[in-house]
Order: sequence, then structure tokens, then C-alpha cells
Amino acid sequence: MDIKITGIGYYLPDTIETAKELSTKINKSEEWIISRTGVEERRVSSIDVDKMGALAAKKALSEIEGKPDLILNASGVGKQVIPDTSVFFQKELGYEEIPSFTVHATCLSFLVALNVAANFIEQDTYKKILIISSDRGTRGRNYNEAESAALLGDAAAAVVVEKAEDKDDSKLLDFSMNTWPSGSHLTEVRGGGTNLHPHDERTTFDDNLFSMNGPMIYKMARKTVYEQIQKDLKKNNLTTPDIDLLIPHQASGLAVKAYSKFGGFDESKVVNIINTTGNCVAASIPLALALAHKEKLFKRGDLLYFVGTGAGLSVASTLLRY
Amino acid sequence: MDIKITGIGYYLPDTIETAKELSTKINKSEEWIISRTGVEERRVSSIDVDKMGALAAKKALSEIEGKPDLILNASGVGKQVIPDTSVFFQKELGYEEIPSFTVHATCLSFLVALNVAANFIEQDTYKKILIISSDRGTRGRNYNEAESAALLGDAAAAVVVEKAEDKDDSKLLDFSMNTWPSGSHLTEVRGGGTNLHPHDERTTFDDNLFSMNGPMIYKMARKTVYEQIQKDLKKNNLTTPDIDLLIPHQASGLAVKAYSKFGGFDESKVVNIINTTGNCVAASIPLALALAHKEKLFKRGDLLYFVGTGAGLSVASTLLRY
Repeated sequence: MDIKITGIGYYLPDTIETAKELSTKINKSEEWIISRTGVEERRVSSIDVDKMGALAAKKALSEIEGKPDLILNASGVGKQVIPDTSVFFQKELGYEEIPSFTVHATCLSFLVALNVAANFIEQDTYKKILIISSDRGTRGRNYNEAESAALLGDAAAAVVVEKAEDKDDSKLLDFSMNTWPSGSHLTEVRGGGTNLHPHDERTTFDDNLFSMNGPMIYKMARKTVYEQIQKDLKKNNLTTPDIDLLIPHQASGLAVKAYSKFGGFDESKVVNIINTTGNCVAASIPLALALAHKEKLFKRGDLLYFVGTGAGLSVASTLLRY
Repeated sequence: MDIKITGIGYYLPDTIETAKELSTKINKSEEWIISRTGVEERRVSSIDVDKMGALAAKKALSEIEGKPDLILNASGVGKQVIPDTSVFFQKELGYEEIPSFTVHATCLSFLVALNVAANFIEQDTYKKILIISSDRGTRGRNYNEAESAALLGDAAAAVVVEKAEDKDDSKLLDFSMNTWPSGSHLTEVRGGGTNLHPHDERTTFDDNLFSMNGPMIYKMARKTVYEQIQKDLKKNNLTTPDIDLLIPHQASGLAVKAYSKFGGFDESKVVNIINTTGNCVAASIPLALALAHKEKLFKRGDLLYFVGTGAGLSVASTLLRY
């Protein structure tokens, strides 16, 4: 599908929380945090996801002409139950009368939304699509679950997607996704919906917080992601050196390192930002793209490969000629 | 886009709550409830949205061969914050390895998801898409806000969408959506997300419940919906008699009646189920489709027109040759 990312922006809150600062809250040492999660520091936002997302979007929009004809929220957790968070993004951006909705697949929301956008553009359904991922994972940290509490960080990132022109090489070459509900209990926030509603007497304090079984996810994800990568490469007649830059979800230090340790990718080609940002839920992938873009780690025509896991368990990957 | 709805199913909980039964809870008379909302009775579910949605989906899937290659959740409110509700639908259906995600636009989620599905099918991205809308609005009723509490009901509905064959007339002729964030405060559940998190001391009891400004929404929606209808008809070179069946969102008794009273549609051509189901949030539109299908109110080749409003405020419409 002949699409092109024409604008990229991100927002990182000013407030830094170091492993040392977090250590007293979760009753673990600075060393434990860093060795266990790979996160030396993360950002903590004092503004909500709508304002964070709008700040990232404004940067992305400053690189293009005109305004978007569709706003997609591709975050992990919304501002509130209803209206949809995309509406609040539009409100913060000062627009009116732009169709807005959410594409949600927890940490994979950005990749799924990018694929939805590509299908829309290829069909001429929409022409200039703004995708925003904004997450404030620190709001759902459970200090009694040290590992996941030490992983999460806040960030927002946004892209504008348009039709590639004839002279461009840019295209979305492939997208794959798979979901294994047998892993649905491995990463959860059990509250906040119709089941364990905040007013339900069965709802515990922990139900409203993030919970994960790190070792089991790593075990399940390493296998499924490895198989996904092999399938993608084979299907597209590629080998790992053909990929100019691998942009993975920043699930954990261990997960990001696995792409070079077991996945066959050169470590220098794997974007690794988790040490300073943590796992920023759905914002992690577009944030990694945005920071790599800022550092000029890729250029027009390069082959980018996005891959990650999300609660579900789901795995998704995207091959993009930038 | 040459798509065809090949399977339709719904689930209505057995438990009926009449206006009389509700009257003592909200401190209003049976007459007040019926005259104000048009809802004589609604269903109240004792099972959660995932099980409700799976029951509807099983009926839709019984009409087709094989299993879906994509499961879209198109509900108003999810089972829990993460994983995505689509994963729980898949789990209840006993599947594994089917990509699953959510398309969310509150009460308009079904129409938006149908459009996403049509784009996917036209691009051969997916071939057999299961869309499920399942809502348990009674979980979020605020008994101190009589009007909205009297409107909400529980239901689920599902469709399977596939490519139309050459011999079929079936197609999605048009889809339109628009969002006005200036109406974002008119319909809200302010809690349940990152802003008014259940643990936030600012979060009130009411923040976790549904709240709406009925008269203001009606005023804003009547104008925007009317303009949308005129635009759709003109763009597609149609007049109201060309529409075989109008399937509106069951927002309120007044809202459904407005299509014939002000919209120019013959009352017999407007599907009106709100008296026995209430406003079932995102499940309302596909439920109205499913009940009309059961009553044989339309046949293959008929021109169906879906239109509705959602929190945002958003308006969406779909022209479908069934």
C-alpha cells in the first residue's frame, strides 16, 4: 500500500523519575530495578493523555500542510470511558468536524492503526490521517508489583500518514497480527470496565492497577515473536541484513535485547530507548520511531521493521519502506 | 466497496426490567419513564459483555462456513482496561490465533467498524471479519440521573462481513462520519481512564457513571443528523423513498421518532426497537439490524441506511446495499 509517513512528533514529560527515586516506593534497590527491567529512568506526566497527545500531534502536524481528515487514537488506555479519547485530542488541537475514533490493541495499537490508515488511504477513504498514541502508564502502577511498576513510563507520539506520490518509494509492504487468548491473564488491568466496575464490591484495589507475569510473557512472546519474524522475512523474501532499522515495542530491557541476542539482528540496528523512557505502553513504538527519526538513524527509502507484543497475548509486525 | 453481510446474530438477556420495576429505583413514575424516554422495558444482563458478545457471535457464525480471520470489538465500553475486549470474545468463542482488536467510537462503534471491515475486505487484507458489539449499559446507570438511567439497556449483536461475489448486488455504498468536540461534555463517563482513575481522590461516585444532557444532545444532534442525511441523499442521488429501511441508533424514543417526524422518512421504514430494548449503546444499531432481519423487514438487494449519534458529539451514517 502506497503510503508515506509525512509528519512525526513526540512528547516526553519534563519530570524524570530515576531508578533511585522509584526504589523507595517499590521497596527494591536501584540496582535491582536496572538489572531486572533495564529502565534507568522514566518520565512522569502531570498532564493527562489528551494534552500529551496533542503536544506530540502539533509537532507532527507542523511538518505538513493543512489539517488531517481523520484523527485516530491509538493509545493503550484512554482518558475516560466515554467520549472516545480521539475526541479529546481533537478538542486540544482546536479542531471541529474531523471524524475521530480509536483503534485499540493495547501496546500494539499504533501498528494496528497504521495498517487501518494504510487501507483507508489506499481506498481513498481518507487522505491525511493523524495517528496519536499517548499513554500515562505511571497512573496504573502497582507499587506492590515491583517489576511492572519499574517498567512503566509516560509518553506520547504521533504521525501523519498520507498517500505516497509516484516519485516516492514509500509504502507499507506488510502487516501481520496474531492473538492468543490463552495468554489473556498474563497482562491485565482487570478493573475500569463493565466486569469489575469501580462500584462493584468485588473490585479490589489491585484490580485497578497494572499486573503482569513477566517471566511467562517473556517465554510465550520469545517463541511467538521469533516465529513471526521468520514468517515475515520469508514471506517478503528478506534476510535480517535487509532491514535498515528494527523498531520494537519497548516491552522490557530483556525483550528489546532478545532481538539481537536471539533474533539475529545486529544490536546497532535495534532501536533501544527503554533505559530512559521505560515501557510507554502503546506510545513506545511510535516514540522509538520519533526518537530514531530525531537521531537520523534512518532516511527516506530505508526499510523499517516494527514488531512487538501486547496484552492478549498479541503479536504484530509491520514492514515499512519509509 | 463490494462487501456482504453473510451472518447476523444477537443476544438479549432473559431478565426484563419494566418501567414499573425501574420507577422505584429512580424515584419517577412508570408514566414519566415511558413518556420521557420511550422505554417500556429493557434487558439486564447477569453475564459480562464478553459472554454476551460471544453468544451473539455464535449465531452469526452459524450462518457461514469456517472461522473468521479477524475479530473486531465494536462496543461502547469494554470488559476491562486491558487486554482488549476482542481478546475475551475470541476466548469465549474457543478460538486461538485470530487477530483481534477494537474499533471504538462509543455508540457509533459498529458503523465505524463496518467501514474499517469494508476497507480491509476491498484490499484483501482480511476476508471474513466478525464484528461484535456488546454493551452492558445498566452497569453504568446513575439512579440520581433519572432520564439517562431509564434509557440504558443491555444487549449484544454481531455480524460476519465477507467479499460480495460477482453475482451479488451487495455493497457498502457510502460511509460518513463527523465529530464535534464542542459537544464532548454532553455525554460522559468521566472515570475509568487515566484522568479520573478509580484511585484518584478527586474521582467522585458519579464520575464512574453515565451522565448526559439529553435536551442539549437532542438539539445539537437533530441539526447535525438532519444535515448529514441531506448530504448523504444528495451525494448518492437518492430521495427518502429510495431507502428501503432506515436503521437508526436507538438513542431515545424522541430521537428515533425524529427520523419520521422531521427527517422525511415514512414511520414504517424506520426500525424502532427502543420501547423494548432501551438504548443499548454500541449494540443498538446492529441489534436493530438483527431484529429487523429476524422480522424479515428487508431482503437481499434492499437499500439499508444506518445513521446515528455518539458521545463526542459524533454523527455517522452508512448506505448499504444488503
